[in-house]
Amino acid sequence: MSKPKVFEKPTGVKDYLPEAVSKLRHIERHVLDCMHRWGYEQIMTPTMEYYDTVGVASSTSDSKLFKLLNNRGTTLVLRSDMTAPIARVVSSLLKEAPFPLRLSYHSNVFRAIEEEAGREAEFYQTGVELVGDPSAEADAEVVALAIASLKAAGVQRFKIAIGHVGFLNGLFEETLQGRDGAQEALKACLLGRDYVGYREQLHNLSLSGPVRQELEDILRLRGGQEVCAQALNLSSDPTARASINHLCEMWNVLQAYGVTEHVLIDLTMIGDFSYYTGMTFEGYAADLGFPVVSGGRYDNLLKQFGRPAPATGFALKTTRIVELIGDDASGEEQRILIGYNAAGRAEALKEALILRADGHTVITEQMESKDRPAADSSGQLVYKGTAYGSYAGFFGSEPERLTGRQRGLADK
Amino acid sequence: MSKPKVFEKPTGVKDYLPEAVSKLRHIERHVLDCMHRWGYEQIMTPTMEYYDTVGVASSTSDSKLFKLLNNRGTTLVLRSDMTAPIARVVSSLLKEAPFPLRLSYHSNVFRAIEEEAGREAEFYQTGVELVGDPSAEADAEVVALAIASLKAAGVQRFKIAIGHVGFLNGLFEETLQGRDGAQEALKACLLGRDYVGYREQLHNLSLSGPVRQELEDILRLRGGQEVCAQALNLSSDPTARASINHLCEMWNVLQAYGVTEHVLIDLTMIGDFSYYTGMTFEGYAADLGFPVVSGGRYDNLLKQFGRPAPATGFALKTTRIVELIGDDASGEEQRILIGYNAAGRAEALKEALILRADGHTVITEQMESKDRPAADSSGQLVYKGTAYGSYAGFFGSEPERLTGRQRGLADK
Repeated sequence: MSKPKVFEKPTGVKDYLPEAVSKLRHIERHVLDCMHRWGYEQIMTPTMEYYDTVGVASSTSDSKLFKLLNNRGTTLVLRSDMTAPIARVVSSLLKEAPFPLRLSYHSNVFRAIEEEAGREAEFYQTGVELVGDPSAEADAEVVALAIASLKAAGVQRFKIAIGHVGFLNGLFEETLQGRDGAQEALKACLLGRDYVGYREQLHNLSLSGPVRQELEDILRLRGGQEVCAQALNLSSDPTARASINHLCEMWNVLQAYGVTEHVLIDLTMIGDFSYYTGMTFEGYAADLGFPVVSGGRYDNLLKQFGRPAPATGFALKTTRIVELIGDDASGEEQRILIGYNAAGRAEALKEALILRADGHTVITEQMESKDRPAADSSGQLVYKGTAYGSYAGFFGSEPERLTGRQRGLADK
Repeated sequence: MSKPKVFEKPTGVKDYLPEAVSKLRHIERHVLDCMHRWGYEQIMTPTMEYYDTVGVASSTSDSKLFKLLNNRGTTLVLRSDMTAPIARVVSSLLKEAPFPLRLSYHSNVFRAIEEEAGREAEFYQTGVELVGDPSAEADAEVVALAIASLKAAGVQRFKIAIGHVGFLNGLFEETLQGRDGAQEALKACLLGRDYVGYREQLHNLSLSGPVRQELEDILRLRGGQEVCAQALNLSSDPTARASINHLCEMWNVLQAYGVTEHVLIDLTMIGDFSYYTGMTFEGYAADLGFPVVSGGRYDNLLKQFGRPAPATGFALKTTRIVELIGDDASGEEQRILIGYNAAGRAEALKEALILRADGHTVITEQMESKDRPAADSSGQLVYKGTAYGSYAGFFGSEPERLTGRQRGLADK
């Protein structure tokens, strides 16, 4: 293939200009502060991990892992999520720390991408892991914290859909025992939210009338607390019923948190079955087709790192939230220009230090007195093509220093 | 080679536990805020770049670049610094933005490492680039900002040594014209700060007495402003003299900034000659053998990306500074524990939300009333092996709610 042009960057990665950085930093700061107040302590892990440890244990499919070789010939991966690296740390550096452990992170993660439009090879996630607590209280805590985090990020309107892998597993074992192919086909439809395809599969399968009805009825199991009662009527499978009772208990806790207006139970929701072991959830913002948060319980991961423990958590899709929130979050502010020549330099630079110590953003420029910035048609001061909020004056042999009021600042 | 153990991570990379993250975040926030007040706007670039563009242009030697192949077979690198990626952005996304451009960053960077002790494969840098201004004012601005940034990071005692690649280039051209091998050997000694070896080289070379003396005298060219006058006496080479005059002018500006107590001129200092084109500097903290900041002028980089422009900047070695600053910077704070059972849950979770809204860190735990935390020998409250600053009470059917005063908080 031809050499890349000098200004090109690899497919699927991007540059963040100051305005986008400001939004990302705003979200990062507010969400991490929120997680901190809930008792979650931040950790950071390396960008590169061993393929044979974290790579294999991660929930990312092998073909989507970014692999590279180190100089000993060992295969490394660029981390594809933070959950597996945190499981490694919990089992090594933190192996003496008592459970429950509450940990948070903000990190870039990597996915090897196909040539699909809009897929990103590097993006940011902000999330938590609550390790060592198997209870519905713990699951509800992370859902309530996901809701608090979305609010902290500035997402106004959103819904969290909660499901449980045990419900569908139990129901399918009850109705389609031993028919693995049929189970897989139905789960694939639900994973793709293809309900028409799901109904077609049901009609093509050889099923008794009541069983077909039972499997079709689950498509209606989306809503509030009432869904739990409906689901308990639907199945007598113990795994399915235990899952529903877990969700009922979670609902009670979420009511105590006062957040059920943001929550719906969706028993058709299906996470990664090879990874999640209990409740799973996804959050959708109004007017956005992609989830902005996803999470769930993964009780089988930690034992792969030698410290078996239940765990639950979530990751915000921070990069997507950056695109969602308005410009007001970036907190744009006015920059002050100070002009000077050699004779006024000491005075000008001292003035700049004073203004910066007061929290102002100040740029100093050596210039000629006559070059002072002019107001453009919108009234903004412009100097050499750059807009400034105000001009603190020109400092020459006789400083023409403006007062704070003259340059639009409160006088000290 | 054998498979890595489950808890292992690759050589040269590390995990940051909460205390270290807190320090790193503290430095990051304060330094970026400082740079912002000086008018530098933050940008972010991808972890991966094309080898043929950013990889080749970077100042990192080829053998130290982390290379990988994308799924089209094109060679990528993990960025080894931020200067070359920023040059790419200045020449592409920002190609219409007027000069001078002031940009800042905080980023992890990567170096393929040999099996040397203590070498890091991934570490953090926080820095600025000032693009489009060739003046001594601009060079002095970045040195003054480096000093302000070190102070913002919490580094108390440090010195910045300033040199100029033009001085040694000019002097060696004057005294050792055409003798490339001799020039290289002497520069190698200076780069390694091997002054004994430098003197030995001088005595082994066939040189006239005055020339040998002149080349030996440069070892004394380290100190304050007086070094400039001494250096002007030493050489009549125009390149060397122009370099000294540039440093003199910088010194005057640094005096205007009021920061010369932190600065010394060191004409024996030698940066990467293939990369830097003018003044170079390094900062050393007391009691630390490594530089904590390095920078300089690189007027030849931007044209490799199609937008020729002078540029100057620096990078703090943020990871090293984390190890340098004390524990007080991490701002450790007390966590509050709230216990509850099912009957008191709603009351307990509501209390937690109120305290968090007030900025407190609160952990809620379902427990039995009798399990309330006990004070250990140091007076710290401990529950299940974890220390808490205070206990807001147990919430049951009859909440045993403590007042703020009782639990060591100011009453609302």
